[in-house]
Amino acid sequence: MRDARFASFLADGARHYGAVTDAGMIALSPQFPQWPTLQAAIADGGLPLLAEAARGAAVSHADFTYDIPLPDARRIICVGVNFPDRNAEYKDGSAQPKYMSLFPRFASGFTGHNTPLIRPPENHTLDYEGEVAVVIGTSGRRIAASDAYDHIAALTLCNEGTIRDWVRHAKFNVTQGKNWDRSGAMGPWLVPFTDAAQIDDAHLVTRVNGEVRQDDHLRNMVFPIREQIAYISTFMTLQPGDIIVTGTPTGAGARFDPPRYLVPGDVVEVEVSGIGTLRNGVEDEA
Amino acid sequence: MRDARFASFLADGARHYGAVTDAGMIALSPQFPQWPTLQAAIADGGLPLLAEAARGAAVSHADFTYDIPLPDARRIICVGVNFPDRNAEYKDGSAQPKYMSLFPRFASGFTGHNTPLIRPPENHTLDYEGEVAVVIGTSGRRIAASDAYDHIAALTLCNEGTIRDWVRHAKFNVTQGKNWDRSGAMGPWLVPFTDAAQIDDAHLVTRVNGEVRQDDHLRNMVFPIREQIAYISTFMTLQPGDIIVTGTPTGAGARFDPPRYLVPGDVVEVEVSGIGTLRNGVEDEA
Repeated sequence: MRDARFASFLADGARHYGAVTDAGMIALSPQFPQWPTLQAAIADGGLPLLAEAARGAAVSHADFTYDIPLPDARRIICVGVNFPDRNAEYKDGSAQPKYMSLFPRFASGFTGHNTPLIRPPENHTLDYEGEVAVVIGTSGRRIAASDAYDHIAALTLCNEGTIRDWVRHAKFNVTQGKNWDRSGAMGPWLVPFTDAAQIDDAHLVTRVNGEVRQDDHLRNMVFPIREQIAYISTFMTLQPGDIIVTGTPTGAGARFDPPRYLVPGDVVEVEVSGIGTLRNGVEDEA
Repeated sequence: MRDARFASFLADGARHYGAVTDAGMIALSPQFPQWPTLQAAIADGGLPLLAEAARGAAVSHADFTYDIPLPDARRIICVGVNFPDRNAEYKDGSAQPKYMSLFPRFASGFTGHNTPLIRPPENHTLDYEGEVAVVIGTSGRRIAASDAYDHIAALTLCNEGTIRDWVRHAKFNVTQGKNWDRSGAMGPWLVPFTDAAQIDDAHLVTRVNGEVRQDDHLRNMVFPIREQIAYISTFMTLQPGDIIVTGTPTGAGARFDPPRYLVPGDVVEVEVSGIGTLRNGVEDEA
């Protein structure tokens, strides 16, 4: 189960989900009509059964396109400023905040692994942010930090791509800089969460064209994932399939002088030990 | 069609949708299995057919509870500061902003007509904000303001209830003050949008225990609804069932000195000419 990797993908004009093996993609959705999506499987605690079904199955799809792991995700909550030195990067001299900054993103703002991030014609300040995302498996309200990991079903990666200039269009709220169609990416797959070390010992690296831009360890988070789950579940009942994108390290392109925004032809990789590598090119909108 | 009112409701332990008549509630969902939800009907342009089916049908449910009109809404985008004098109310002397402030809310943050807003034990600064909400019926990207109304399927009302103290927990982003479970309300129903005058001539009043607290006309909006649709669709493709909550007038409880927050037993009404009256009590969380 720990080594299982579950992906949503498009093949032969249809949506599927399945397991990613070293040999290739195994479709599982045809065997589990009771779970039309990975999200439905997670809501039923079905990942172990999917892992079982994948064992020894033959590769079913040589030609497929990755979708984001949960294309029907209803609630994606992103954590802002969350590693040391980020405030220094923002150069505003503000003290460490007492509470985390949170903002929702819609699933439409993300594209799957190995598909291009889209730079729109209106603005070219497309930037990367490598992050770990946790997928909730068990509902809960006012979850204690000490119990928080019991509510996680799976992990994935996120390039929380941003149109930087639009983040500050309004005085408050980053919505319009964080929700451009396919400006970010999620994937490549879900890894079942079975062991605290998968988070606590995780090492996150973001590369652009092979050059390391972000490099940090999740243990350095200002607001650890346990506290994120506790805080968010104070105001809303977390539900299976909810995704928390847990915050990015220093080193986004906007923080360079001059800024180093993404341009067509760039390749961004977000790699986290034990989860995988999320890789996306960059294209101008067609 | 113009006089039709469509609601989602709970009765006999099941979810339904139907039409609200002067005599009572008519269930329509059993006749339209191809549309399991009002959202599905809207995506298919089905409101005229629903209106036709409701004509002359007998009342089916005397005992029911209103749900929010689109309980499965995937994207609810709220517009901040949007009527004159709001900035003056904020007392920060800031000039009129160039761009609108936008923030998403999840459907879980709203309760239906005639059900109570919930005041949580953690914080008692529960406040009201009366608003008109528009439901998108036709997809579009980069919609011209002049074409914006062509993309609206229906109108409803929103009490964009807020836990005021939590809105400023973080330096940016109001997420955690705007997404408490059942802290706001939406409804009572959807009114098909057939005529620009439904918006342009609308008069919005919010009352608490019968006392008028907010009273304005939509023509006074800083960012008119046409511009909201044009701006939002610049960065994301609007899709059927998306909801834009279009901004509240002056007079929220936080702006009084001392503030007048909602307390258990209060009754809040949001009334807009031609749409209806959304009425909710207030209860402490059980």
